[in-house]
Amino acid sequence: MRIIVTGGHDDLARDRIRRAATGAHVEFTADLPPVIELADAVVGHVPDPLLAGARRLRWVHSPAAGVDAVLSDGLLASDVTLTSSAGNGAIPLAEHAMMLLLMLSRDAPRWLRAQAERRWDRHVHGELAGRTVGLYGLGNAGLDLAAKAKAFHMRVLGMRRRSGTSAPGVDELLGQDEFPRFLAESDFVVVTAPLTAATAGRFGREAFAAMKRTACFVCVSRGGIADDEALLDALRRGEIAGAGLDAHGVEPLPQDSPFWSLPNIIVTPHNGATTQETTRRGFDILLDNVARFTRGEPLRNVVDKTAGY
Amino acid sequence: MRIIVTGGHDDLARDRIRRAATGAHVEFTADLPPVIELADAVVGHVPDPLLAGARRLRWVHSPAAGVDAVLSDGLLASDVTLTSSAGNGAIPLAEHAMMLLLMLSRDAPRWLRAQAERRWDRHVHGELAGRTVGLYGLGNAGLDLAAKAKAFHMRVLGMRRRSGTSAPGVDELLGQDEFPRFLAESDFVVVTAPLTAATAGRFGREAFAAMKRTACFVCVSRGGIADDEALLDALRRGEIAGAGLDAHGVEPLPQDSPFWSLPNIIVTPHNGATTQETTRRGFDILLDNVARFTRGEPLRNVVDKTAGY
Repeated sequence: MRIIVTGGHDDLARDRIRRAATGAHVEFTADLPPVIELADAVVGHVPDPLLAGARRLRWVHSPAAGVDAVLSDGLLASDVTLTSSAGNGAIPLAEHAMMLLLMLSRDAPRWLRAQAERRWDRHVHGELAGRTVGLYGLGNAGLDLAAKAKAFHMRVLGMRRRSGTSAPGVDELLGQDEFPRFLAESDFVVVTAPLTAATAGRFGREAFAAMKRTACFVCVSRGGIADDEALLDALRRGEIAGAGLDAHGVEPLPQDSPFWSLPNIIVTPHNGATTQETTRRGFDILLDNVARFTRGEPLRNVVDKTAGY
Repeated sequence: MRIIVTGGHDDLARDRIRRAATGAHVEFTADLPPVIELADAVVGHVPDPLLAGARRLRWVHSPAAGVDAVLSDGLLASDVTLTSSAGNGAIPLAEHAMMLLLMLSRDAPRWLRAQAERRWDRHVHGELAGRTVGLYGLGNAGLDLAAKAKAFHMRVLGMRRRSGTSAPGVDELLGQDEFPRFLAESDFVVVTAPLTAATAGRFGREAFAAMKRTACFVCVSRGGIADDEALLDALRRGEIAGAGLDAHGVEPLPQDSPFWSLPNIIVTPHNGATTQETTRRGFDILLDNVARFTRGEPLRNVVDKTAGY
């Protein structure tokens, strides 16, 4: 059995992966063409042109939580199992979202500007308590954020594709047909959903027009779920009050992007979950799955390739 | 019965106070000397020189949550009952503290600087999850913050003068003699305590030296609990990693204060609880107490004048 691991890993990490892969041969290389034919598994991204020759390939593992960048048409059509690192950054992402909510609600950038100018500049600001937050996506990050929002005395609306399962911390779980109410009642809309065929462009002109003029839009998962042009227009026209964006349609955000300089916007560089702990949790998922794969056990975090996450 | 109300109130507010004060005469004036002799109650601050002539005075109500500014030696020595607006700003203060923790943990000012310069500047930052927060003070704000910190998966240490009562959300309630352990184990020390004889200067050179070099000091209640010179030195010497300060020893913070420009510090202008809701909750406490006073019922939020809160 042969497992190919792309991506940078130091000696210690390589050692741990090798030890997890009992009885299997592990090869560390970013150069897939020479090895793909004999690979049973690849940690990383296998481009479509290589898939045809990957005759033994049964498993691809994504080091990222979201698989939008690796889930190609070829992989989707194949019977190769795809797993993700979902959950590795859920907690810091929920922390980031809550920081953005607090900073938007209180206009924290105003305080930092005043501090830089040594000005004592007091202003009346909002509270999160009593406000409604609408969570678009209730995976690991969304559910952790729901619990945080309850500790902030907020009302929590939730939307997700998979219905039926419980959603602790969510006051009202809305169906897809209740999207207009979700938008109309939320003081903060927070996108934590993956980028899939179903979510791409979900927040367009109509969606922003349906939001409160006092509401803020926050996205911490993936760009492309919001239509950037529609979001820009909504912010410029005052159809919504502000935005906190960690995920962007184009990354890195180009220097000439209008998003940088809109008022009432906080832009962070897809950096919400970038912690040592996220790396460690992601690595733990990888080790666990490598061990499971070599032992022939069911893998963790298997992606529903049709759903896209 | 005569109740004197100082401070600005619009017609609607005056009406509501008058209606709450069934059977009593309510006078709105900031000019106490002509009326103090016949006053049964004063909403506001009665300076010591006026107390001697305030022969009928039985009750003073502070429109602020903290009474350090109105609890004079004369009032302390008198048998006049002092009540406060404690609890009016507890929730937004806990929100502010959590915002400061998140911004410090993630170096949010770095993102705002990069945004202003249109730079995509990613950095590895911390998580609150798994860290220890030490709450110095477990009144309304401290307890609300404890619940929030638990939703952030933090370990919560708590210290307070009053022992024996329960403290939901606090993992370990430490005694005054455990102050060194409180300091040594906290990744974030958050002061929510009132300024009293017991808390004044509690955080001096020894305290900061006992904190982790990676820890941050946050104060959202009152300046003076930290010794500003000791805090400055600790920050300059790297004895602690950063600070988030909403309450300051001197307010407004003078333009030439070194606090404005230290690295790893976030300065806000005693603005954490400045919301419409705080005003409303404070006014509700006032109305309730006015009604209770005129009916001869026990007042809410009676201050233990010896303890100072």
